[in-house]
Amino acid sequence: MFAKNTWYVAARSEELDGGKPLGRKVCNEAIVFYRQADGTPAAVEDFCPHRGAPLSLGFVHEGRLVCGYHGLEMGCDGQVVAMPGQRVRGFPCIRSYAVAERHGFVWVWPGDKARADASLIPSFHWAGNAEWAYGGGYYHVKADYRLMIDNLMDLTHETYVHANSIGQKEIDETPCTTKVDGDHVVTSRFMHGIEAPPFWKLALRGHGLPDDGPVDRWQICHFTPPTHVMIEVGVALQGHGGYDASADKKVSAVVVDFITPETETSHHYFWGMARHFQPHDAALTQAIREGQGRIFGEDMEMLERQQANLSAWPERKLLALNIDAGGVQSRRVIERLLAAEASTHTTAP
Amino acid sequence: MFAKNTWYVAARSEELDGGKPLGRKVCNEAIVFYRQADGTPAAVEDFCPHRGAPLSLGFVHEGRLVCGYHGLEMGCDGQVVAMPGQRVRGFPCIRSYAVAERHGFVWVWPGDKARADASLIPSFHWAGNAEWAYGGGYYHVKADYRLMIDNLMDLTHETYVHANSIGQKEIDETPCTTKVDGDHVVTSRFMHGIEAPPFWKLALRGHGLPDDGPVDRWQICHFTPPTHVMIEVGVALQGHGGYDASADKKVSAVVVDFITPETETSHHYFWGMARHFQPHDAALTQAIREGQGRIFGEDMEMLERQQANLSAWPERKLLALNIDAGGVQSRRVIERLLAAEASTHTTAP
Amino acid sequence: MFAKNTWYVAARSEELDGGKPLGRKVCNEAIVFYRQADGTPAAVEDFCPHRGAPLSLGFVHEGRLVCGYHGLEMGCDGQVVAMPGQRVRGFPCIRSYAVAERHGFVWVWPGDKARADASLIPSFHWAGNAEWAYGGGYYHVKADYRLMIDNLMDLTHETYVHANSIGQKEIDETPCTTKVDGDHVVTSRFMHGIEAPPFWKLALRGHGLPDDGPVDRWQICHFTPPTHVMIEVGVALQGHGGYDASADKKVSAVVVDFITPETETSHHYFWGMARHFQPHDAALTQAIREGQGRIFGEDMEMLERQQANLSAWPERKLLALNIDAGGVQSRRVIERLLAAEASTHTTAP
Repeated sequence: MFAKNTWYVAARSEELDGGKPLGRKVCNEAIVFYRQADGTPAAVEDFCPHRGAPLSLGFVHEGRLVCGYHGLEMGCDGQVVAMPGQRVRGFPCIRSYAVAERHGFVWVWPGDKARADASLIPSFHWAGNAEWAYGGGYYHVKADYRLMIDNLMDLTHETYVHANSIGQKEIDETPCTTKVDGDHVVTSRFMHGIEAPPFWKLALRGHGLPDDGPVDRWQICHFTPPTHVMIEVGVALQGHGGYDASADKKVSAVVVDFITPETETSHHYFWGMARHFQPHDAALTQAIREGQGRIFGEDMEMLERQQANLSAWPERKLLALNIDAGGVQSRRVIERLLAAEASTHTTAP
Repeated sequence: MFAKNTWYVAARSEELDGGKPLGRKVCNEAIVFYRQADGTPAAVEDFCPHRGAPLSLGFVHEGRLVCGYHGLEMGCDGQVVAMPGQRVRGFPCIRSYAVAERHGFVWVWPGDKARADASLIPSFHWAGNAEWAYGGGYYHVKADYRLMIDNLMDLTHETYVHANSIGQKEIDETPCTTKVDGDHVVTSRFMHGIEAPPFWKLALRGHGLPDDGPVDRWQICHFTPPTHVMIEVGVALQGHGGYDASADKKVSAVVVDFITPETETSHHYFWGMARHFQPHDAALTQAIREGQGRIFGEDMEMLERQQANLSAWPERKLLALNIDAGGVQSRRVIERLLAAEASTHTTAP
Repeated sequence: MFAKNTWYVAARSEELDGGKPLGRKVCNEAIVFYRQADGTPAAVEDFCPHRGAPLSLGFVHEGRLVCGYHGLEMGCDGQVVAMPGQRVRGFPCIRSYAVAERHGFVWVWPGDKARADASLIPSFHWAGNAEWAYGGGYYHVKADYRLMIDNLMDLTHETYVHANSIGQKEIDETPCTTKVDGDHVVTSRFMHGIEAPPFWKLALRGHGLPDDGPVDRWQICHFTPPTHVMIEVGVALQGHGGYDASADKKVSAVVVDFITPETETSHHYFWGMARHFQPHDAALTQAIREGQGRIFGEDMEMLERQQANLSAWPERKLLALNIDAGGVQSRRVIERLLAAEASTHTTAP
């Protein structure tokens, strides 16, 4: 159902601040995340080997995770460090997980820790770049993570699900094209000479550009393994080259979607927007975050009810139309990952 | 558990007004109901053949059902009509259901559509009759629909469950008789020379009759297949013939109960009252609706907890006393329907 | 999982006052408790033999339990007494349970009624003793009852779970000893020359003793079958003999814990405190009850989440450290009870 030997976003960095451990299930692994004394994150099973209490109900003392039931101190490697009045040398270990912090997120490798290579965590041109500003949030979604990938790789749905915000009829009417380059799937849609929707009018004005003329609009959805969807979005004043227009004729952003399987029928959804205009306007960051949160909330009922329908009719085949090509191709990449993982398991010594 | 080749009430007519589709499960069939351009109702599976989204999350555009995810237009026959940017000829169909509107309700035939015959929808003397007024409501009940039939075919429970409204000791003390005429089960109880309970005192006054003298009261419960229970109720001034008294000496009504299986352990309950007095008094209609809603709500906890007990002790046999005869005989009619339906299936070509 | 041929606390006495029956599941038996005309409690299955309604939705009329659906009157022996308009001689019986009232609680024997012997209900020196005052409450806990016994037989957890009230570092640092005498398990911890925690400072002041000097503190946890945990707690001014100090140099109490299995993964928890100081101060009783309720509420999330973890990892073995000896030994006593019960069953004629 999901690849485990890969990096997923487990948390936003700020979720580990304040010295509280965070319990979160990733790929069916119940994990507790916390910040060590040097600030780096650690992750172990959310199960105290003493009496089975969840370590996420405990606390962090000088960078060490302490069980909130009887004070067992757990090491970041899953080996017990200490416990009041006890010799802990023979205590059983629990699993520990490879974990790393990048781009304002805590990443976890839920599979074989020995294979985890932090250099495989992707980099993003907007991350840590002063010309860009980022804001985002988190939703728990009771649906297969692949339904969220489908959703994001086919923005046709914006016309219907988001009719009152970012949707417009031209999205639906403009064909999209999907290309696959190895594990990278790209679905693009270019609309020419349309009226900018409200969000982009706002952005144009903020950038000192007129908001009442026709624009060229683009949506370029990038899927990369295991589950990331980055969507280049923007508008340019008509007739200046669209996506390729010079910076003073366009406004653009990246919709950032990190999708992390929780179970077979639920996932963690880290959504956000990195924008390439007015990066220092904190109020704008907050306004976009609120608007995006509201818009992405509109997808939630649809995905959860879609999941309920698919669970009730497991034998039904879904259609794979041209608009679905992005999701279909992304699922093929995932299938290849899963097949590779399975074959590695069977040939392991 | 329930007959499927028969008509059930699926919704009150007003539930389809306002252009919103209505998702409702009937006999384990997930169905979406909507009103077409000419106002007639239509019903198809609540499953978009594109990606499995529930069509009930969509909308109705010029009488056509549109999926709220990607704009697929579904026809009333379960064949896709159109989808933006797509040729839909080869799209898979979904089931459609026979549906009809009668007496202020939308009726559905959840079984084989080819056998649906709208002339089999029962007529009622009070429906559409200017001398009568109707008001009612809807409850979702987490109990086998047959427990509701039992409940309504044995009004002895009023003495206990509705002790503070329509119940009175005489109901309990007066024997009832049950007769079966083909598929029609009738349980009758006649009480003579009793004090009218509060509801009927109100009705007597409204009809210009004295409310402080003894009355004859009747309750005649009619079960007809598959699950309808109509209860003739009323009081007459004592000594004028009771049920057969002339119209100026009595007040009467029909308690209307349409009971629609949802699953094996839940049902839709459409309750109401058609009254034969003060039919033009809209405030009275509203007052009765509120009172009836409150009273019928008292049955809900009992039925749902009874269902929980029966689910926990599935091997226990229940008693079938004389007071239960109405329910017992009604269940026999249902058993015959089920047997007939099973034999038709097995002998189908 | 739990012994059934033994006495458990089913309710606090006041729960049966007011003439309402009380439905409560004990050891997977669904039971309704009520008070008879002479005030003594009775207990039968919570299932009306007529139509399966829960008798706990009914009422008590002149000491007899009446079903709230159709008025069946149930006897305390599980035999139907009467029903309006019915001869009930041939009606099926339901189970009745041995029940008794002692020490302000209603006790039930969920197993074989013939073996129930009320003289086996334990007595407690604080119960009905004018020198002692009792106050307590009830919690429903979604965890195996043995996790609560573990919790109470190892007070090390107070340092962590109750860090802000009764916990103190010295509990954790002072070794405890566990002794077994037949079926009686005792885990004791004595702390010498420590600062009294807030609760005991309050008690010292109320007793006219200084609260600012060092004290000796004790916690002596007594497990007795099937599931009772009584904890002697107190402090004495340092140097006067600790636990054995004369009454004018100490304040003491008994934490009273009656733990009643509901299902394999849930239990009823009757907690309270019998105190041996200021017994006539009702406001103090109320203040202690509130404080204890708040403190014991802190254990709830821990136990329920611990249960969830153990259910998710059923194959994992827990550690049994010296601090766990009280729980481990108590579980051995329970195992012996279960084995004895099993052997009695198999050798029954």
